[in-house]
Amino acid sequence: MVPHLITALTGPINELEQRILDSMPAIERWFRLEWMEHQPPFYTSVDIRNAGFKLAPVDSNLFPGGWNNLTTEMLPLAVQAAMAAIEKICPEARNLLIIPENHQRNTFYLANVVQLQRIFNMAGLNVRVGSISPEIKKPTLIKLPNGDSVTLEPVVRTKRRLGLKDFDPCTILLNNDLLAGPPGILEEIHEQYLLPPLHAGRSVRRLSTHFKNYEEVAKRLGKMLGIDPWLINPMYSQCAAVDGTGGKGLGQLQTTVDALLAKVRRKYKEYGINEKPFVTVKADNGRPDMGIMTVRETKDLDALQRKVRHMMVFGKDGQPASALIVQEGVLTRERVNDAIAEPVVYMMDRYVVGGFYRIHAERGDDESPPDAGFVPLAFEHSTPSPQSGVRPGVSGPNRFYMYGVVARLAMLAASYELEATNPDAEVYD
Amino acid sequence: MVPHLITALTGPINELEQRILDSMPAIERWFRLEWMEHQPPFYTSVDIRNAGFKLAPVDSNLFPGGWNNLTTEMLPLAVQAAMAAIEKICPEARNLLIIPENHQRNTFYLANVVQLQRIFNMAGLNVRVGSISPEIKKPTLIKLPNGDSVTLEPVVRTKRRLGLKDFDPCTILLNNDLLAGPPGILEEIHEQYLLPPLHAGRSVRRLSTHFKNYEEVAKRLGKMLGIDPWLINPMYSQCAAVDGTGGKGLGQLQTTVDALLAKVRRKYKEYGINEKPFVTVKADNGRPDMGIMTVRETKDLDALQRKVRHMMVFGKDGQPASALIVQEGVLTRERVNDAIAEPVVYMMDRYVVGGFYRIHAERGDDESPPDAGFVPLAFEHSTPSPQSGVRPGVSGPNRFYMYGVVARLAMLAASYELEATNPDAEVYD
Repeated sequence: MVPHLITALTGPINELEQRILDSMPAIERWFRLEWMEHQPPFYTSVDIRNAGFKLAPVDSNLFPGGWNNLTTEMLPLAVQAAMAAIEKICPEARNLLIIPENHQRNTFYLANVVQLQRIFNMAGLNVRVGSISPEIKKPTLIKLPNGDSVTLEPVVRTKRRLGLKDFDPCTILLNNDLLAGPPGILEEIHEQYLLPPLHAGRSVRRLSTHFKNYEEVAKRLGKMLGIDPWLINPMYSQCAAVDGTGGKGLGQLQTTVDALLAKVRRKYKEYGINEKPFVTVKADNGRPDMGIMTVRETKDLDALQRKVRHMMVFGKDGQPASALIVQEGVLTRERVNDAIAEPVVYMMDRYVVGGFYRIHAERGDDESPPDAGFVPLAFEHSTPSPQSGVRPGVSGPNRFYMYGVVARLAMLAASYELEATNPDAEVYD
Repeated sequence: MVPHLITALTGPINELEQRILDSMPAIERWFRLEWMEHQPPFYTSVDIRNAGFKLAPVDSNLFPGGWNNLTTEMLPLAVQAAMAAIEKICPEARNLLIIPENHQRNTFYLANVVQLQRIFNMAGLNVRVGSISPEIKKPTLIKLPNGDSVTLEPVVRTKRRLGLKDFDPCTILLNNDLLAGPPGILEEIHEQYLLPPLHAGRSVRRLSTHFKNYEEVAKRLGKMLGIDPWLINPMYSQCAAVDGTGGKGLGQLQTTVDALLAKVRRKYKEYGINEKPFVTVKADNGRPDMGIMTVRETKDLDALQRKVRHMMVFGKDGQPASALIVQEGVLTRERVNDAIAEPVVYMMDRYVVGGFYRIHAERGDDESPPDAGFVPLAFEHSTPSPQSGVRPGVSGPNRFYMYGVVARLAMLAASYELEATNPDAEVYD
């Protein structure tokens, strides 16, 4: 089930969307059966691009921030889903410790932490916020512009457990994507639930692994729906790292880009799509600080050569990207007040609990320019359909539904991915 | 977790409500652990009375109607809870058959059936409505005043399964309280999930069993909260049936009423409550058609003697009440536009998903006069509290919360009750 949110989609429903809407009971059942076999990530946000003729996820965040961008009406859904998640993982839970990102003075981010604290508090847990930043040496109250406040407390690590002074949590919720790798203070914790697990961290995950799994589940769902999986799946290729010092490997990148652009062109031709294809080049480790390049023609790569090198050499910590991923670009057709509006879907456990649009005036080379604004998606409040004889459903189709499907498909791919990368997995030979 | 609904409560929060609000995480954890051991009824509505100094459930309906009285905003919560319920009981479910009450021309009731159909459809099931009324001989489309419509189809019973023509459900949802006992057509169904089970029917349940279980769980919750359980528990006594023909047994009823009124008087004195106590007399089998009498003094019983006899002798099917239950009356202090407003709380699986007020201008002798109106409870939409330093939570306390606690306590009692009356229960000696 996906809440009925008002999207910016006002045009007619095309064939793809209609197929997804018509298949709702079958899709829901398919997900239900998948979640019997696979554990959903604890919480997930998925960025989606909708070109009209196709839609696709571009990023699946397993440590989602931005919970404060959801409307208050979505809070009960998030709380109910949080209850379900807690009941399943650790029903006896009493105390929950949230570990936020270390850049603790960003009040937008901290409003998100407050919202998470609120959600899990309403789900029946005592919730406190423990910082692993070395700058937090004593409980620090930070007031936010919206009137909320949050107290960051220094974590206390014992041999076997992590907590705060006078606060021993049974569950630790990471809202820190561990970009620089899991810090020692979070390792060797076996007595407490650490959610999501350390191998969900940004330093471990690979976009190529995620999209390989996504491709697999998209194929299976596409088969069930009787559609070409390409309509919900962005094609991609992996590519070795470009040597930052001398452009070594740039040739291979050019070849990869060329080949993928040709594949997209063929698909566009097959569907009679009159658009100029483009691909994006990203670091396979998905580090957002390494940037994302948009390439429409191979010769763009020459102009971007310096950026490619930069991307290869400099992460914030100087760690090079191990490899590159070249991915089919998917346009965004939705607009809010003439600005480009990219849907972001929020999930808690297996449930879609809300979403918002990331808004920016003009598409640049980046998928998520830093000056983006946020427009929460409101609930559809209209009363049931006045037409007689229609099948049950609130008035008008739920145009947020297809986003909820693609987002959960990406979440399912993340679940497969985490299973495959779990270092503690039992292997049956 | 209980959604933050706007109640009619505007006065200051008294000690009892404050204690319940302060204990929220502990209460939620307590319920979470209870639901590990006990299966919640599939869906439940609970009528509550709030006298201010105490509050109590008066009826727990395991085949709740009135889903159409909830606001559309509550629909996503109900759908999410329905998904959780289905996943737990029969995750492979594809088709769901709803069996409604037989009085199929009541459009208010049918609007409820449409809403249930909508909820389970959005949860990912194909849902159809199968009538067990002998009047439904072919698919019958009924249009409702609100523009909705519903098709009632005659059920088809084979030796082992129940379904419709061309529709084989794996799950059958009863929205028919089986007042006259389970009809043969619903018996001996072992291959399909029949929810709730037949022994949840009105002809099997006894109020005395329900309130005995309620007393038990109220005592345990009261102990945890450090409160006198009487503050959430209505006292009651059982009493043998009065012989309808000659008033035999009326003496025993008088004695029982007297004793309970005295107990209530003592409690009122202990708490300095300046109200006139009253009790209600109901048929122990809880048949609403037998009426409910309010008794303030023993001599009222003489005036009510004819009604008592009537109650004993005539159910709609002439079946006499097996026994009586005399229960402490709990006043309703809430008013909406000067009318008495009695909260009703709706739950799906273990989750509180909404509620409304049953409204009537003046309290009569009945707990639910037939001319009652309904006022849905709206969601609290305000943004998070602007005061700094407050603990997480939406602005202002959730005054619906205590209703959600008492309602779930009554649901838990119903769960114990169903376990104890389950004819298929495995007994370990």
